[in-house]
Amino acid sequence: MNSSIVRYTLGLVLMIEAALLLLPCIVALIYKDKNGIYFLIVAGLCLLLGFGMSLSKPKSKIFYLKEGCIITSLSWILLSFFGSLPFYLSGSIPSLTDALFETISGFTTTGASILSEVESLSKSVTFWRCFTHWIGGMGVLVFLLAIIPIGGGSQINIMKAESPGPSVGKLVPKIRSTARILYIIYFVMTILEILFLVIGKMPLFDAINTAVATAGTGGFGIKNDSFASYSPYLQWVVTIFMIMFGINFNAYYLLLFRQFKKAFTMEEVVHYLAIILIAIAIIFTRLVNSYNYASDALRDTAFQVASIITTTGFSSVDFDKWPAVCQTVMVFLMFIGACAGSTGGGIKVSRLIILRKTIIKELNSYIHPKSIKKIKMDDKPIEHEVLRATNVYFITFTILFSLSILLVSIDGKDLVTNFTAVAATINNIGPGLSEVGATQNFGHFSTLSKYVLMFDMIAGRLELFPLLILFHPTLWRETFNRCLNKHIK
Amino acid sequence: MNSSIVRYTLGLVLMIEAALLLLPCIVALIYKDKNGIYFLIVAGLCLLLGFGMSLSKPKSKIFYLKEGCIITSLSWILLSFFGSLPFYLSGSIPSLTDALFETISGFTTTGASILSEVESLSKSVTFWRCFTHWIGGMGVLVFLLAIIPIGGGSQINIMKAESPGPSVGKLVPKIRSTARILYIIYFVMTILEILFLVIGKMPLFDAINTAVATAGTGGFGIKNDSFASYSPYLQWVVTIFMIMFGINFNAYYLLLFRQFKKAFTMEEVVHYLAIILIAIAIIFTRLVNSYNYASDALRDTAFQVASIITTTGFSSVDFDKWPAVCQTVMVFLMFIGACAGSTGGGIKVSRLIILRKTIIKELNSYIHPKSIKKIKMDDKPIEHEVLRATNVYFITFTILFSLSILLVSIDGKDLVTNFTAVAATINNIGPGLSEVGATQNFGHFSTLSKYVLMFDMIAGRLELFPLLILFHPTLWRETFNRCLNKHIK
Repeated sequence: MNSSIVRYTLGLVLMIEAALLLLPCIVALIYKDKNGIYFLIVAGLCLLLGFGMSLSKPKSKIFYLKEGCIITSLSWILLSFFGSLPFYLSGSIPSLTDALFETISGFTTTGASILSEVESLSKSVTFWRCFTHWIGGMGVLVFLLAIIPIGGGSQINIMKAESPGPSVGKLVPKIRSTARILYIIYFVMTILEILFLVIGKMPLFDAINTAVATAGTGGFGIKNDSFASYSPYLQWVVTIFMIMFGINFNAYYLLLFRQFKKAFTMEEVVHYLAIILIAIAIIFTRLVNSYNYASDALRDTAFQVASIITTTGFSSVDFDKWPAVCQTVMVFLMFIGACAGSTGGGIKVSRLIILRKTIIKELNSYIHPKSIKKIKMDDKPIEHEVLRATNVYFITFTILFSLSILLVSIDGKDLVTNFTAVAATINNIGPGLSEVGATQNFGHFSTLSKYVLMFDMIAGRLELFPLLILFHPTLWRETFNRCLNKHIK
Repeated sequence: MNSSIVRYTLGLVLMIEAALLLLPCIVALIYKDKNGIYFLIVAGLCLLLGFGMSLSKPKSKIFYLKEGCIITSLSWILLSFFGSLPFYLSGSIPSLTDALFETISGFTTTGASILSEVESLSKSVTFWRCFTHWIGGMGVLVFLLAIIPIGGGSQINIMKAESPGPSVGKLVPKIRSTARILYIIYFVMTILEILFLVIGKMPLFDAINTAVATAGTGGFGIKNDSFASYSPYLQWVVTIFMIMFGINFNAYYLLLFRQFKKAFTMEEVVHYLAIILIAIAIIFTRLVNSYNYASDALRDTAFQVASIITTTGFSSVDFDKWPAVCQTVMVFLMFIGACAGSTGGGIKVSRLIILRKTIIKELNSYIHPKSIKKIKMDDKPIEHEVLRATNVYFITFTILFSLSILLVSIDGKDLVTNFTAVAATINNIGPGLSEVGATQNFGHFSTLSKYVLMFDMIAGRLELFPLLILFHPTLWRETFNRCLNKHIK
């Protein structure tokens, strides 16, 4: 294993985190918030450590998928640990476990909170909490790839590990350019949302926090009632932007290069929008009679559907109180998730399209055993490797999901709480039902359950395998042997 | 399509049903139960129809998996329809939908009942209700194959469609002999159980009904409290026989031919027994303090674990009242199910072993991308086709499961009821939790939900694809065109 590249890249990641931690310091300066000092201290710590780790350059810049996965998962763990320190040191979150939960929930764009109350947080802390969504949404390593040349042709192995979706879409042949284009689209869309929110008379600070949380499809709110008290205009703006950030960014790239037809007929995007419309139709029909105005019912429904399918997790209404069929639709949306290549989580629409086509192909093979039609997406045949990986992903997802429920159930909470708590974290959504419903929080879980849910959040964000291989015995044996050899020498 | 073999075989199945319906007639004679007449009428009806359908022999006896699946799924639908008529005609179950639900639940060895009360049923009706489990357990077509030579080399296509498990184990080269051996083992074990029960002073009639329901891993009881009021000895006997009927019958075949080592080291059987022990250990530890005697806690736990993992569904205690972690373990067991090649349902232990090995292989491929180790079971490499089919089965299972929950949720019941109702039917278990708990029944569902659950029971028993291909558009188009052509001629 090329362990020097792992060390080197982790060092770079910590230096980036140091730079990012300066943003809440600026916020603290503007609002005269004394918590800024903690961000400065941690930034210094990250810089020092990061500088030390990246001082000696790696002998070889060549690495494989294994190193790509290890770099990615360790980066996310380090990032979360240092990111949680300001919450803990400032006393905003008095328990380290809780601070870590909140930070992982932020970076993984989950938005599940252990806080019962967020309006008393200081400005810099509020900003950092929401801003972690923005960093995690597109990915910190993708950001690294965009700005620093590391590893030449090996970079794809980092991109594969951090980017969501069954296959990595390189927009252009060079990974670095792809990463830059992605971040530019991401940045411009975030600015656009801020503008629209400010036009709707949202204060600038609120608008920035809301926009970064929407962009990352995160869901941390700055008000205790999340989005319930905002004006209809603001709710619609956020609804539309949530849906937009859940679309595969390849579509925006195609739009940029005026390939309109290709962009508007992308199978995944068409399915994604169709699912949203169907879900809204079902829930709206069931809810409309309990509202005075149909427009209110439509707005609440659209907001909630967009929030859950994109795995954002904002709420304008408590869907824990909805009728069973609406709740069931919402639970479905939790698993479906957004498009691959977006900032959203969940299983992803494209994977479900592939699974559906796999089932149809199987049925066809009973009728026409000799037919060997290939499964296609957007008129191109899907590689066998992608099909296999999708199947294995789905199986692993289900099994990890089940085991997590088993562990969380030790707390003795009801089945709906356990089921939706795991669903809301592994799919990076935020709120679930019952004791983790929209008006509740995750603070009441035991420490064991909290760590299980943290694991699920990272596993969900990195799409399982990059995190799981950290637990591979071979890896531990290799590391152990290397340490032993060094010691003997 | 070879439609004449479909017609011919369905005719034979109906004649077998006619013969089987004579058994409750005999029971009626013994106990002077006037409901016997309805069994006789329906037997006559089946004989007439079956004779008519099998009068002209098929031109060709060659057929493929497609016909095998169609024969199997149509047989099960026909069998259930005619099997339900005595319930309906005798007025024991006044609604035809409910009678059909009860019969499908019987044949598929589910044991989910719409009856709130069973002790008032007449003897012949009680016997038929339990006996459907025995017929469905090993399969009516396997029975047909055992006694009548049809289709030469094509028989494997029926065996494949009706027998549970990822791959069909032919015990001996000839299908007919395999089917015979299976039924002989099945019959002998049932007789053994009757003996043990009678020794424990259970009345013969009760013993026969209990034994056939255990053998098929069905679960219809003859008492309103299922198994709660039987003596500890009888509960232990049934516990042990439930576990035995959940073991892969290949193991018994190996025992018969004195291949003890092979039998006792079958990977699936070892895993199956290990899962049972672990589940008992977890639940026992959690429950023991609430009992006066540890032996009672152990007996209740072992009975319930055996009942659910083998998908039998008897209950000696209401596990809906157990703590959350115990309930969660029970829900897990519902999905795991028994061994392939047993009479039990669920996903099957061997499939889960294959899935686990698939995940490990995927993780290994991240560490050693060039390794091409094959996945093995019992030291033999598993064919690629079996691996693929297992993956697709699991995916299809999950999606069918989810869609069923969505449809059932329209009734507006709570999520736990909907989830476990579908789990208990698609896995052919019987009781679930909450409103379908051990002391409840399925009578309160809407007609739509009942049909969804009936579909799930047959889909679960036939392992999805044989039933699903009935809905394949190509099949309908073919049939439609044939009818059209006949009409034009």
